[in-house]
Amino acid sequence: MTEKKTLRKFWGWGDVGQGLDANEQEALRQRYAAGYGVEMRGPAAPRAEEIPLRAPRLQPPASLRSITTTDPWERLVHAYGRSYPDIVRIFHRQVPEPPDVIAYPETEAQVIELLDWADSAGAAAIPYGRGSSVVGGVEPAVGDSYRGSITIDLERMNKVLEVDRVSRAARIQAGARGPELEAQLKPHGYTLRHFPQSFEHSTLGGWIVTRSGGHFATLYTHIDDFVESTRMVTPRGVMETRRLPGSGAGPSPDRLVLGSEGILGILTEAWMRLQDVPRFRGSRAVRFDSMMAGAAAVRALTQAGLYPANCRLLDAEEAASAGASDGTHATMVLGFESADHPVDAWMTRALELVRDHGGRYQTAEEEAAAAGGGASHRGGAVGAWRDAFLRAPFYREVTVPWGVVGETFESACTWDRFAEFHDGIKAAMQKVLREVTGRPGRITCRFTHAYPDGPAPYFSYQALGTFDGALAQWREIKQAANEAVIAHGGTITHHHAVGRDHRPGYEKETPALFLAALAAAKKAVDPNGIMNPGVLIDPIGRSVGVTGALRTS
Amino acid sequence: MTEKKTLRKFWGWGDVGQGLDANEQEALRQRYAAGYGVEMRGPAAPRAEEIPLRAPRLQPPASLRSITTTDPWERLVHAYGRSYPDIVRIFHRQVPEPPDVIAYPETEAQVIELLDWADSAGAAAIPYGRGSSVVGGVEPAVGDSYRGSITIDLERMNKVLEVDRVSRAARIQAGARGPELEAQLKPHGYTLRHFPQSFEHSTLGGWIVTRSGGHFATLYTHIDDFVESTRMVTPRGVMETRRLPGSGAGPSPDRLVLGSEGILGILTEAWMRLQDVPRFRGSRAVRFDSMMAGAAAVRALTQAGLYPANCRLLDAEEAASAGASDGTHATMVLGFESADHPVDAWMTRALELVRDHGGRYQTAEEEAAAAGGGASHRGGAVGAWRDAFLRAPFYREVTVPWGVVGETFESACTWDRFAEFHDGIKAAMQKVLREVTGRPGRITCRFTHAYPDGPAPYFSYQALGTFDGALAQWREIKQAANEAVIAHGGTITHHHAVGRDHRPGYEKETPALFLAALAAAKKAVDPNGIMNPGVLIDPIGRSVGVTGALRTS
Repeated sequence: MTEKKTLRKFWGWGDVGQGLDANEQEALRQRYAAGYGVEMRGPAAPRAEEIPLRAPRLQPPASLRSITTTDPWERLVHAYGRSYPDIVRIFHRQVPEPPDVIAYPETEAQVIELLDWADSAGAAAIPYGRGSSVVGGVEPAVGDSYRGSITIDLERMNKVLEVDRVSRAARIQAGARGPELEAQLKPHGYTLRHFPQSFEHSTLGGWIVTRSGGHFATLYTHIDDFVESTRMVTPRGVMETRRLPGSGAGPSPDRLVLGSEGILGILTEAWMRLQDVPRFRGSRAVRFDSMMAGAAAVRALTQAGLYPANCRLLDAEEAASAGASDGTHATMVLGFESADHPVDAWMTRALELVRDHGGRYQTAEEEAAAAGGGASHRGGAVGAWRDAFLRAPFYREVTVPWGVVGETFESACTWDRFAEFHDGIKAAMQKVLREVTGRPGRITCRFTHAYPDGPAPYFSYQALGTFDGALAQWREIKQAANEAVIAHGGTITHHHAVGRDHRPGYEKETPALFLAALAAAKKAVDPNGIMNPGVLIDPIGRSVGVTGALRTS
Repeated sequence: MTEKKTLRKFWGWGDVGQGLDANEQEALRQRYAAGYGVEMRGPAAPRAEEIPLRAPRLQPPASLRSITTTDPWERLVHAYGRSYPDIVRIFHRQVPEPPDVIAYPETEAQVIELLDWADSAGAAAIPYGRGSSVVGGVEPAVGDSYRGSITIDLERMNKVLEVDRVSRAARIQAGARGPELEAQLKPHGYTLRHFPQSFEHSTLGGWIVTRSGGHFATLYTHIDDFVESTRMVTPRGVMETRRLPGSGAGPSPDRLVLGSEGILGILTEAWMRLQDVPRFRGSRAVRFDSMMAGAAAVRALTQAGLYPANCRLLDAEEAASAGASDGTHATMVLGFESADHPVDAWMTRALELVRDHGGRYQTAEEEAAAAGGGASHRGGAVGAWRDAFLRAPFYREVTVPWGVVGETFESACTWDRFAEFHDGIKAAMQKVLREVTGRPGRITCRFTHAYPDGPAPYFSYQALGTFDGALAQWREIKQAANEAVIAHGGTITHHHAVGRDHRPGYEKETPALFLAALAAAKKAVDPNGIMNPGVLIDPIGRSVGVTGALRTS
């Protein structure tokens, strides 16, 4: 391992040097101090040498030595994902279970060799894309029944291998990050157009195994819809599905891979359906008196068969904090795009529908003028929201040391339940935030995606806790959030995945017989249960200690 | 069992009294005789008393006696599906393995009791909707390791139980046939709009477990897309998924149910997404010089994001035989529909695209005039094709005794392979039809559904064989068709299911490790392997004798 490259942060989002600059941090500090009426202070970001790591318990075979490392910085980078409790623990300098070895395979043959080694060594194998999991999905906390843990980082398997221009599809290696694969598709005139918030710091493989939610607010909401075939290395060998545009031959093999979160094997590549680059766009910000009025409009839009690419709805507080409103109204960001045809007819009808539901909007010209003359999809309320969206993950490493406890969680429910779901969750969160922190907290909601039969609401909360008690505070709040989401009829996750943090809810939401079937399926391809233990379900015969309770370390 | 109702045919499609009348049969006979230059004659349809059945090997417990029967007619009706070899065997008066008992549960509790009885009796349980399988999917030929077979017919569980008008969804019992569920939805102003060719003679449960293909040629091609949640009775208990518009929590449980073909349990009900009844429609027939020219236009349409409801493409011979053309050109049936908005903008752009690809069409007025003034979606080439489509399954019971061997098979492949796939399959079929029957046969193609990355081609073949050799002839042809579909990169079935007849291809197409995972999942919910043995995969530890070869009885 001699190659030098950009260093990744182990205490926060992205690479060293990325994030809020000093001025931005100071402005944030003053804003929070004013808001909470308390000075904002806390420990600096940890230095690697402040965190002692236990000695690696595994020794790679000679054939794998050139692609493995036990470098402390790398072990820290790969010790956690990037969730709130992950950042808390890092700032507390607590890393009791780092991976013993990190591997960077360059070929599928090396992935196979790595799993063979892990299996024979009695070690756990943790598939790793870019490590931006916010649910404990890449953590090598696997318990004592494993002789060690090997994190397999796919960053070197990042190529677009083949482009089929006729079928508009590409074969892409699983380790390709968003910008990497888009850059390789661009010369062909194509785009995957899958833009999760983590776009820059997540990979195709990660998107597929976590059923990532992407760019399109309706119709093609999850990466699932763009998967044409998959290729996965399991401990028992390679499982490759046939490239097909559609099939009815038995239960879909790809649908077992989608959402498998690394417990079946390591995805090495996939054939993905592509899009032409959009040439026609229309975008408009629409105001509503209330979240519920906006929700009724979203429902009408989804049931009309218009399929807007963007149909995000932000409640008043969320819109205000994104700079997309003055805090008096809910805001819908409505957009159509096409590479084939002008979208005027679509937008015209959509605007009729939102008007029928009390939506108010400016003309396209007024909106463009207000945005300073830029194209409407880049400027104004829409542009403000987009910028805030992409910057959001960088805030956590700044606010965690101040004792600010905050996270997001997301779900989906049917329309008939939505009002009760929304109000019930807000009430439960307000209650638990006050109980845990002794002060009122903030809980806001937006829709990230929407379906004819229900929305995907996304909640953000924030309250002032204490840095010392942060993990316990978070755990109590998380448990309340999980319980409220399930009690009010939602799914424990619409697109953040289950990982470790959502297992209690996942086990309530999912039929017990399906969990038994999934565990049996896992055993068929991973007989010794080495793949990503602790995530999603326990391997048969092994308990990793996270079932039914949130991690306590 | 005292209730009297319409008798179902056991030798053909639908109920006694349905099908071609005497005049139609005579016209068909003369047409075939002229075409093949041979008299068309053969045995009459069998009478029940001509077919001796072995004595039932099972005795239902007293508690189930009121919902079970061993009536010979019922045993004949449930002995086969409605495929070509099924009709051949019935006309040959060959029914060596009828079900021992037929059960008609009225409640889910009775379904549970039936599976408990089957499991404890060592009997196979065959879930049965309306029995219109064309792939050997409901056949109680389960081998000698079972002590008998119980066919569980869901016809009495046919209610729409609940309609959620806000989420536009309904809870529907699995035994509801197409017309039954549509009639119950109609007063609410809704429709499922799932119209497979078998619409009248198939059920919601059958559609779901076979991943049925339906009305929409693009976007919502399979029933899969309309399933919100499912409820299935397995030998180990009930597995019910949560009603959700979308989720990213692990691999989708519903996607394991979809395509499971009865090997995991009996679907009892499902929450289904509904449609508003369309108010706006546009439909047009478009001519192309060749199938390949038409295919290029379909590809352009699917990649344009216009989502036509109908986008069927018929090759010249198929269009001619459906009365939709004079046999000189391929015909596309293009249609848009909406309950929300006029579809003119959509149709206008679609017609530009097809014109760019050499498509020729009349104005809407010309087409309506040619159709005799009816609405364009009901008349003309479109209407002719629709009528022929729905009547097609009734022809088989007339032509089988004449020795006409004919069947359909369908697939899907990516666009880059389509030309080779199409030509390769036609060549392989022409070859095998000539080899088997000693004469040239007819093989035609249409697209039933289409995707941005490929079409779903549907083939129909016909040749003059002999009644005596029909089963052997069919088997040889079927094997060649299966092999050609797989060799040229297609799926063994896009929407007819795997059943018994497609297992050889299914086992080639599907990753071995997925088959192992599926078998393990089955064992977790059906430990003794009683559910629909012989279909899809063999239960672990039991061989039913159909793997890798077509059934020989």
